[in-house]
Amino acid sequence: MTLPVTHPLSDGRTSGAPLVTTYRGVRGAVTPVWFMRQAGRSLPEYRELRVGTRMLDACLDPELASEITLQPVRRHGVDAAIFFSDIVIPLRLAGVDVDIEPGRGPVLASPIRSAADVAALPSPSGADFSAVSAGVARTVEQLGTTPLIGFAGAPFTLAAYLVEGGPSKDHLRARTMMHADPDAWAALLGWAAEVTGGFLRAQILAGASAGQLFDSWVGSLSVADYVERVAPHSAAALAQIADLDVPTVHFGVGSGEVLKPMHEIGVDVVGVDWRIPLDVASSRLGGQVTLQGNIDPALLAAPWPVLESHVLDVLARGRSAPAHVVNLGHGVPPETDPAVLTRIVELVHAQGEDRVDG
Amino acid sequence: MTLPVTHPLSDGRTSGAPLVTTYRGVRGAVTPVWFMRQAGRSLPEYRELRVGTRMLDACLDPELASEITLQPVRRHGVDAAIFFSDIVIPLRLAGVDVDIEPGRGPVLASPIRSAADVAALPSPSGADFSAVSAGVARTVEQLGTTPLIGFAGAPFTLAAYLVEGGPSKDHLRARTMMHADPDAWAALLGWAAEVTGGFLRAQILAGASAGQLFDSWVGSLSVADYVERVAPHSAAALAQIADLDVPTVHFGVGSGEVLKPMHEIGVDVVGVDWRIPLDVASSRLGGQVTLQGNIDPALLAAPWPVLESHVLDVLARGRSAPAHVVNLGHGVPPETDPAVLTRIVELVHAQGEDRVDG
Repeated sequence: MTLPVTHPLSDGRTSGAPLVTTYRGVRGAVTPVWFMRQAGRSLPEYRELRVGTRMLDACLDPELASEITLQPVRRHGVDAAIFFSDIVIPLRLAGVDVDIEPGRGPVLASPIRSAADVAALPSPSGADFSAVSAGVARTVEQLGTTPLIGFAGAPFTLAAYLVEGGPSKDHLRARTMMHADPDAWAALLGWAAEVTGGFLRAQILAGASAGQLFDSWVGSLSVADYVERVAPHSAAALAQIADLDVPTVHFGVGSGEVLKPMHEIGVDVVGVDWRIPLDVASSRLGGQVTLQGNIDPALLAAPWPVLESHVLDVLARGRSAPAHVVNLGHGVPPETDPAVLTRIVELVHAQGEDRVDG
Repeated sequence: MTLPVTHPLSDGRTSGAPLVTTYRGVRGAVTPVWFMRQAGRSLPEYRELRVGTRMLDACLDPELASEITLQPVRRHGVDAAIFFSDIVIPLRLAGVDVDIEPGRGPVLASPIRSAADVAALPSPSGADFSAVSAGVARTVEQLGTTPLIGFAGAPFTLAAYLVEGGPSKDHLRARTMMHADPDAWAALLGWAAEVTGGFLRAQILAGASAGQLFDSWVGSLSVADYVERVAPHSAAALAQIADLDVPTVHFGVGSGEVLKPMHEIGVDVVGVDWRIPLDVASSRLGGQVTLQGNIDPALLAAPWPVLESHVLDVLARGRSAPAHVVNLGHGVPPETDPAVLTRIVELVHAQGEDRVDG
């Protein structure tokens, strides 16, 4: 498949969408809202569709991935879709033997533990993203003026999976390679930046209106290690979409110490987890950066008045930033009652309307 | 067994030990050093002793626990022993059906998920700590002037295990109970504070010269939740040894955001993980608090010059605090070469001597 050279969204269908304008730093009457992992296990219609299909196979089936991506938009009325995929998809497409074990997460047949293992990785340019492009194109066609967010894992988080080979707590093996063999580490992150940047680029070229880089495990790093041995590779991944005119978001869990360097790789928006309030995050970013977040997922099962007051607090603190997109501080937990998410969307949108009226 | 009313260390055998004076805020010529999890799987002599004995059974065998506690003191020449036990021991002794699955961690037969589950917990006053007291007494006798550190898990970390029932990433179930049923949460943490405080008190009464409270999972909390719904219970646990004249340390992983409230529960020393440098931690604590830490465990497998330079950097940054005890930023990884730990002890001690000579 030959990818188009120009961005297909030059038709501008989503350029006035609240999510896109907010990502570009313009605060509108209504605060946009979407949820990380909104497409997934919390929805009965998703669980039904997924029966008998393995996770990565579902991601690579354009029709299935597209339908799953659209489900939460229809149900919740969120301001954006995020493409249903997984951060290890580019590894699989590059030829790495990786799968997702239900209830466990990504598992590699052969973890990368040495310079020789890194050197033996398949060529990153060999990845064929046509299934991803097809899924995105199909989704965008059906979304109309609702923007689609493309996404990719950041090189560190991918490297953590590649080195650990499975779930781990502090990603100690990966962080050990970083110091015990810094050359192998740099080569590994360079490789990961190339495949994951290609994955993100394919989604934007096929019609996604924004891109989010997930560095899920960045919180396990010391600040110095992040700045010196990780951030440059995240910037390299992002550079692959620098010529495409879409806003970008950067999110990590437990990232309070590294918010500023995470912004400095060149993104428009910083996603914040539930650990620090948005006004504190904004102040660490000099009050100049659009924020996304940060409803605590642990509140989703609380009585509605408790959750409502928390959402209003998130909105109020979000006013310390130039613009704000409401989201959770992490992905939707599988056991979440979907009705609660719908109610949050209504609450957030109603606040905007009140404000215009009042 | 009747516990003595007065502290048995009134004989003062360890009161002049570098660890104890440093914990009391007095910087000596030599910086003391010990390692979290120094007694354990990194030592071949430990692995040999443990063959055929389950973890919690080993902790509750006074002879075995004592011998394991002494092994790293003999081998590395560290400035303190830390009693070989586990933070779930007080749960087991209170009658909770908990075990440690090798390679997995604490697993509960019946996780605590509701107010009724909390109400059905066994009485905390029923715990019999005599096996712990016997192990500590035996250890202290053999340690001579080397101090023994007693320890206990903080109520939140214990509650996280009790609610999750097994390993978890962000302790979402526990944090959900905190908000969905705050009364049950408070009752659970009150219960945990009582049993874990009793466990710590038993160790001090039997001869430990200091106490460390581990709130391992504190890093998953928002600052507000920590201050309002966790810290008061940690203070309650600590209050159980307030009448015993021993210095106290408080440590958590990923605790950069809550260092100050962790100090404010009333401890003498704050332990810092590897994420932020000690000078940053010290500045967050107003430069007035003795620190413990924070060699990055990921550096233990790096070439010696890299590790050496990191240890010297930790020592240099530790000078920003009134006093400093060297430790790792987390426990010794099982695969650590013990010779490296011995070499770190020699390096740290030699720095002190150089400084006196120079």
